[in-house]
Order: sequence, then structure tokens, then C-alpha cells
Amino acid sequence: MDSFSVSGHIVDVLNRTIYDGTVIVEGNKISEIRKEEVPSYAPYIMPGFTDSHIHIESTLLTPEHYAALAVSKGVVAVVSDPHEIANVTGLEGVNFMIENGKKVHFHFYFGASPCVPCTGFETAGAKLDSKDIGELLKRDEIYGVAEFMNAFGVINGDKECMAKLDAARKAGKPVDGHAPGLTGSALARYAAHGISSDHECANLEEGKERIANGMLVQIRQGSAAEDYDTLAPLLADNRGKVMFCSDDKYPNELLEGYLDQMVAQSVEKGYPMWNVLEAACVTPVQHYKLKHGLLRKGDNADFILVDNLHDFNVLESWIDGAKVFAGGKIVEKNFVKDPTPTTVFPNKFAAQKIKVEDLRVPCTGSRLKVITARDLSLRTGVEFVTPKVEDGCVVSDVENDVLKIVVYNRYEKAKPQVAFIKGFQLKCGAMGSTISHDSHNIVAIGATDQDIVNVINILIEYKGGLLIADGMSVSGLALPVAGLMSPLDGEVVAKKYAALRLMAQSQGCPFNAPFMTMAFMSLPVIPELKITDKGLFDVNKFAFTDLME
Amino acid sequence: MDSFSVSGHIVDVLNRTIYDGTVIVEGNKISEIRKEEVPSYAPYIMPGFTDSHIHIESTLLTPEHYAALAVSKGVVAVVSDPHEIANVTGLEGVNFMIENGKKVHFHFYFGASPCVPCTGFETAGAKLDSKDIGELLKRDEIYGVAEFMNAFGVINGDKECMAKLDAARKAGKPVDGHAPGLTGSALARYAAHGISSDHECANLEEGKERIANGMLVQIRQGSAAEDYDTLAPLLADNRGKVMFCSDDKYPNELLEGYLDQMVAQSVEKGYPMWNVLEAACVTPVQHYKLKHGLLRKGDNADFILVDNLHDFNVLESWIDGAKVFAGGKIVEKNFVKDPTPTTVFPNKFAAQKIKVEDLRVPCTGSRLKVITARDLSLRTGVEFVTPKVEDGCVVSDVENDVLKIVVYNRYEKAKPQVAFIKGFQLKCGAMGSTISHDSHNIVAIGATDQDIVNVINILIEYKGGLLIADGMSVSGLALPVAGLMSPLDGEVVAKKYAALRLMAQSQGCPFNAPFMTMAFMSLPVIPELKITDKGLFDVNKFAFTDLME
Repeated sequence: MDSFSVSGHIVDVLNRTIYDGTVIVEGNKISEIRKEEVPSYAPYIMPGFTDSHIHIESTLLTPEHYAALAVSKGVVAVVSDPHEIANVTGLEGVNFMIENGKKVHFHFYFGASPCVPCTGFETAGAKLDSKDIGELLKRDEIYGVAEFMNAFGVINGDKECMAKLDAARKAGKPVDGHAPGLTGSALARYAAHGISSDHECANLEEGKERIANGMLVQIRQGSAAEDYDTLAPLLADNRGKVMFCSDDKYPNELLEGYLDQMVAQSVEKGYPMWNVLEAACVTPVQHYKLKHGLLRKGDNADFILVDNLHDFNVLESWIDGAKVFAGGKIVEKNFVKDPTPTTVFPNKFAAQKIKVEDLRVPCTGSRLKVITARDLSLRTGVEFVTPKVEDGCVVSDVENDVLKIVVYNRYEKAKPQVAFIKGFQLKCGAMGSTISHDSHNIVAIGATDQDIVNVINILIEYKGGLLIADGMSVSGLALPVAGLMSPLDGEVVAKKYAALRLMAQSQGCPFNAPFMTMAFMSLPVIPELKITDKGLFDVNKFAFTDLME
Repeated sequence: MDSFSVSGHIVDVLNRTIYDGTVIVEGNKISEIRKEEVPSYAPYIMPGFTDSHIHIESTLLTPEHYAALAVSKGVVAVVSDPHEIANVTGLEGVNFMIENGKKVHFHFYFGASPCVPCTGFETAGAKLDSKDIGELLKRDEIYGVAEFMNAFGVINGDKECMAKLDAARKAGKPVDGHAPGLTGSALARYAAHGISSDHECANLEEGKERIANGMLVQIRQGSAAEDYDTLAPLLADNRGKVMFCSDDKYPNELLEGYLDQMVAQSVEKGYPMWNVLEAACVTPVQHYKLKHGLLRKGDNADFILVDNLHDFNVLESWIDGAKVFAGGKIVEKNFVKDPTPTTVFPNKFAAQKIKVEDLRVPCTGSRLKVITARDLSLRTGVEFVTPKVEDGCVVSDVENDVLKIVVYNRYEKAKPQVAFIKGFQLKCGAMGSTISHDSHNIVAIGATDQDIVNVINILIEYKGGLLIADGMSVSGLALPVAGLMSPLDGEVVAKKYAALRLMAQSQGCPFNAPFMTMAFMSLPVIPELKITDKGLFDVNKFAFTDLME
């Protein structure tokens, strides 16, 4: 059995103390931690970070490549909801994520996604019913039930929802929440069903109310939703009730900073260090009953070395007793278990190409109901504008930033749904994607119908991807893994995605993550006005609504 | 007549002194400069910068859009050689540049390009003979003869070369040089023909030798050729013999820093400030007999305001008596003379699509002669490698970074020429461009023949552009203006180009300016080994050479 020892200042987060010593690793376990003097310049040895909630699919990377980026930032474990791929290809997709993750040394904990599809107001590629959830929960790789988005269903005692919650209770596994805007007695009822976390708190009060209801709050720093500044004050108190998460984050942003950055930022802001480290390392392990190590004798040997407790620059990451990251690089021979390249990917794509005529919107009123999108938020607003009409049809009004948005069923023959949106500010061309939460139909926004048609038709040829084009330029990234992920390395995808973002900026879009913000315009469980493949949707009324009045 | 006054610390570069005062502008002239006290925090008023040598085409921008970027960096005038567009469309292209430049307030001085085509070893789209040069030199818009690249022709007394030099003498206009590597008696003979500048000095000794021969040296900071560190020491002395230039520079790099940056850097390095400002503002005006103002009473009112004499942050730029840039923005109403958009562009494109078979290179020897490219240099080297052979043909050897490079005549029916190159390190896919100095045929480099074919055929559909693609991504920018320039705004093109560069990096290319370095691989007047549309070319022997031995 291989044996290693690592000396340094040992950061014992469980006991909130630091002492000098040597960690002895035998096989994949810590056999001993010996107290002994080390030089002052020695590194700090601490438990690795756990991202308490992510959809790995949103990194555009497969699990194996996501993990390589994660360990470079000191993240050794992730609680992941595979509901993006589940919405496209069902259990086949979930199995793909689990199996692909097994190719490397990293701790993946996947959830059974209870809202596939998210609602009945859209068409997904697959369905997971309570029986599927029950079966999944029997598996060791499944930590529990992932985000329960159908809050209405839970509160109203919907039968299928109740069956899924029952299955979790029987399995003795936790259920994650997803309750944007829910407060008061509705929230209390939601929590009373055993739903024990939420990563959708829009303000501090919502966070406090969830904790008062016995739930844990996840401070999210994603690409299209940054809640850190709002929720960080919870770190001042609330031991064991706060965790960090990314939810949806692009690979270029993961490379810029992940939980390492959230921890350093929190300590710099003056929040108690032990609270911060508890949130980043310990609370997810305790809450979700995770199996990786927390730097105790007998634990699985998972830990990281950092330069100091201010910058938290990650020098080394150890997983399963092996040094998987060091010197700024992945240690391939330790990190990779199975080097065979994955070449067969699950996917589902039946959409047929469209024509300009398919996007016509006859003008039937004097006021147009417009979705208003804003940067770094998944929530939208509603605005009424005077429509711009040409030949009796409503068209994109570039000058006033009222652009056509199209959602087009990718799973079966259907008519594209058309609405209008403010915020994206494209001056020309169109952008499109086969990532559109959570059903992942085709979504596109553009300055002209012809541009939208071009983009959608190329995405159909790709059978999945991101694309932005105007008459003068084009930039595209194919996503052959379920139309959601690239099979390429993280750094490569990060650069390609950054290129697409620059192209979007060159066409006028001011958003930090234009494609991700666009992808959430079809998610009918986050207020206020959204569009699915079946039509314009009023989230507050939980019903379809008219485009014009 | 409009009248304005601007107060500040007046930087009188001609007299090497600074005094407080107010500049009175009447119409487009400085009617008076009044000495009077100004607050210490007032800005510094100084002559604008002149870029002493650029090919505007290399910015990917048309003159009007180039000028907008330039004035934001304090550049008010440019000495430009339009030989890129002249090689594609001849006098029609030169006229396009002149006329397009007249749409804005900026001082363009264009040269008569004496080497169109650059040599007889390649196919260009047009030819300018000594009669054309003579006619051009009669025009006010033409400052003189632009870079005389055919040094061999000059030294050997080639008849056409002599006729062009005669025309300059008769017109009383200067002739620019271009003499990479030329030394000793050859250089002396070149200079004796009245060639009075060089921007191709590879080291300090070459610079000093040119000055000793009565020539001026241009310190170049381009995207693919950075000579600043090498040549800046000339600023310590050599009054009136040194100028700054960019030669070939991409719009994103112009935005990062232009002559403003070279000046600030030089002052920071401790070179005498007056020498530096003389090189940036005065020497080009005196050498080329330019007509814009140098901040004297009666001069054309061209000047800039900077925050201090360390950072040289440009606060305002004034041209022809109008404030054309202020507050970080172009003042459109002052800057633009003619707001009609240019919609008809000169171009020349007759190439037919190619097939994989067209790129086959039968293996005929045991050693392959390979071009070696390096970052930030236009010069190449030669290396011999063992060819990688498949089915009797030499193919790209990605593992050893020996990639196929193709140059394909865009003006007439021809066979693509194929050679091999080291340095670009593409791991997959291919990149291609219709910018390839100086004949601007199609050039492409790729990991497989199929990738190269795809890229070339798309560029043919575009009728000009930059493109990079692999099986998983694509990024392209159309260049409808002669296959060299985009008609879009500078900031837009800068973003789009930066996106393409990121894509090239994602495929493995480590160069600062991959497309520009590639574009110089076909320039047969810069050593050592190049490839034109007619074949592999040994610049030292000035003759075609064999690919294998």
C-alpha cells in the first residue's frame, strides 16, 4: 500500500483550531495525524471545499473535465443535480453523468431530480416519475432528492410530488429546495414536507426566514446569478445553516475563481473564518451525509494545501490519498482512473429546420407584453410597449431593444413559439442555444427573423450547441453531449465560450453571461414572465398569457 | 467663424519648453497662443502624435474607423502605405482609401506603393508600374513613395525600380525604405538612391548603421513584430532621426495602447522626454513635409490634451480646429464630415473551391524542409525534419508541430501550393485568411487536409475573411473590403478579432497574433523561408526551393 506524509499547519475546521503536524496517508485513508513542529513557511493543510449545489451540465463540461477544473480550485466534492441532462435523455443521461464521473478521482454526489420535466407547461425530452425517483434513491451514488422546483405542487399536496417526497423519507435521504420568492405560511408548508435547503434567496430576509424554518441556505455565485453580496451576512452567525454553491457557472468563470474565491472574499470581508470554512468544507458533508474526508484520522484522505488563510491559493489537492493537483497542474496519472476517451454521448434531437414565415407574429393589439431580462439575475419582469409593426406583423424593434425571442421544441414536430424581450440589446444578428432551462429546447434572440432562422437552423445541423452570428461574423460551439455539454477539456471550452461571449458583446449585448441569461428565459418556475416551447408564461399566475392586449 | 480657446500647460515640443497659456482657435487655425497663468491641475496641451508608418488595412478597419481609434489615443495623423489594397485592386483600392479617409477629420498621408506586386514570385490582383507611381506622386494626397521592399531591385539598378525612384526625385517627395537584414555596402547603395527611412531593423546595430547612412529609423510596435525594446535606446540620442510606427496592428491592440503607450513607456524608461516627443510628434512632420499643425500660431489647429507627462492619458484630441475626441468618446458631430455609410467596396475574388486531393504532397525524399515561425517576428527560419507519411503522402504531424500550410491564388485558376510549418501548434482544426502579405492570396494552416479544405472553401464563400474551425467550434469574420478590411466600427471589430484569437488559442496556438503571423508567411521579402501561391521560396537565395531532399 502506498504511504505518503504531508507536513504543514493543520487547519482543523471541525474543532476550530490550527496546529502544526504531519498527515500520514496510507492507501486512500489518513492513518495518522502526528503533532510536530513545522517551519513557519509550511503550507496550511485543510479539508477540501464542497460545492453544495451545481448542475455540472451548466459548466458546458462533462463530469470528468469539470472535476479537473474543480480540483485546481480546491474543490474535492460536489453535490450535483443532473436534471439538465435528465430533461433531455432521462435515466440514460443520469447514468452517463455517474459513469463519466467515475473516470477520475473526485467525489461526485448526484441527486435524483424530482422535476423532470420542470412543469407541464413545456415539452422536455424525458420524464422521471416517482417510481424512477424511488429507484434512483436506492443507489449509493444518489445522495438524495435534488431541487424540488415545483413548490406549488408540494404546497398543494400534488400526488406525484408527495410520492417523491415519501421515497426520500423512506430512503432516509435529504431533499433540496428551490423556492424563489416563497415566504410566510407557503414557505412553512414547503419546509414541513422535509425540504431542507434553498439556493434561490433573493434577499437577506428570505435567507433568514428559511433558516427560521429549519432550512439551510446556499450562497450562490453563478455566472448569471450572483447572490454573494446579498447573502454573505448570514456567515456572521447561523452555524451549520449556510453553504456555498455555484448552481450554474461557465468554465471560464470557474477558472477565474470558485469556492476558493468565495472563501477568500468572505474572510477578507471580516466574516468569522471558522464559520466560513465550516460553510465551505463541513456543513455540506454533515447535511448531505457525504462520505469524503474532513481531515481526521481514519477519514478518506481528501484535503488541500493552501498558501495562507487570506488568499487561499490552492497549492495541492489530494483525493482518495493521491495528489491530483500540484504546481498549477493536474497530476494526470493520479487524477485519471480510466483514460479511455468517451466517444458515445446521449442526445435527443428531432427538430426540423424552420423558415422565416414560421416566426411571424400578426399584430392583434396595441400593447405588447415584453419580458424584461437583467444581468446577473434569473428573474425577469414585465413591461408593456407599443409594438413595431411591419406588413401587419410585430417585428424586433432594435432601436428600443425589443427583440424577438423564440423557443422551439427540439424533441418533436411543433411550431416555434415567439415572444419579445428587452435587455439583450443586440444591434444586429442573432444568438441561439440548445441549453434552455430546464427542458432544453432551442432558444434564440435576434434583431431580424432571418438572423434567428439562420441561427436555429445551424443549431439543428449541429444537433446542439451555442451560436452567435450576424452578417459579418459567426462563432459557434457544438455541444454533442445532449446538446448541453462539450466533450473537450475545461480550459479549451473556457476559451471557446469566452470567444462566443466577446462576439455577443460585439453585437451589443452587455450581459456578463449572455447565453446563460438567455437560457433561463424559458424556466417557468422563476418569476415573472417567461416563454416555453408552448407559449408565453406568467409565472406568478402559473398559467400561459397573451402576447398582446 | 467658430472660435474656441483651450488653456493649460503648453508643451512646446519644437522649442523644448513648457509654459502656461491659452490656445485660441479660429476656424481650423490657431490664431494665437497667449501666455497666461493656469491652475496647476490644468491639462497639458501638446501636438498630436503621428504614426510614421502603417498599413491601415492591417487594422482590419477602413480609414474612417481606424481614425476613430487613433484619435482616442492622441494620434492625429498617419503616414500610410495602402499597398495591401493596392495588391488586391490596384488604383481603385488606393482611391477607396483616400476617399474613405476624407469622411472624417483626421490627417491621412498616403504613399505611392512601389512594390505592387511585391515580387515576381507571387500572383497579386494588380500591378502598379512606374507610370502609375509617377501619376500618384502628382496628387496632393500622396506624400511620397512608400516602402521600397525590392531592395535587390534597387541595389541592382532594376529599370522599373530606377524609374520609380526618379519619379519621386522629380516630385520632390521622400521614399520610404524596407531593408530587413541589409548591411554594409548593400545598405549604402540602397540609401544612396534617396531611400530615407527603415522600419525593419532587427537590432540596435542595424538601426545605428541606417542612421549613419543618413536614414531615419522607425521604432515599430506592431501586433506580430515588436521592436520597441530593441530599438528604444536610439531615443537617447539621434535627434531628428527616430520616429515611432505600428506598421501592422490589430484593432484590439490599438485600443490597448498606441503611440500614447510608446511615449509613456519611453519616458518611464528614462529616455529624454523631448527626444521622445520629437520622435512622436515632430520628426515625421519634418521628414515627410506633412501639413498638419505643431501647435504654433498660424498652424492648423491639431493638438491633444493629456493629463500629465508621465501617463500621457489623452483627455481630448483636436483636429482642424474641432474637438473630435473628449470624455473617452468620439465627438461624432465634430469628427464625422460625411455620415453616409460606405456600402460599395472594392474586392477581387475568383478562386474556386478545392478538394482534399488538391492538397496531397507525395513523399519524394527523406528530409522535409520546414518553415519555422516564431511569435512577434516576421522573420522565419528553416528546419529539416523527418516527414510523417501516410499512403505515400506527407501529412501534418500534429504531435511534432509540423503542420501543413497552404497558399492558394485567389485571383485566377491555380493549384494550391503546400508546404510545412512549425510554431503554430494547432492541435486540431485549421485557420485561414485572405490576408497574406503582400499579394493577399488565401493562406491556411491546419492539422488535417479536410480541416484546411473546409476553412478555405468557407473563405471563398465569404469572398474574404478570417476563419478558424475544428470539429467542435467555428469562428469567422468576413472582410468584404478587398478581403482585407471590415466595414464595421473599430471596437466591434476589435472584439470580433479577439474572439478569433481566443479560438486559435483554444486549438493550441500560443502566438500573440496568430492570424497576422500566418499572414506574413507568404511575404517573400522577409527572410528566411516563405511560401507564395507559386511555391516554397528561399528569401536568402531569392529563388524557389524544393520541399524535400
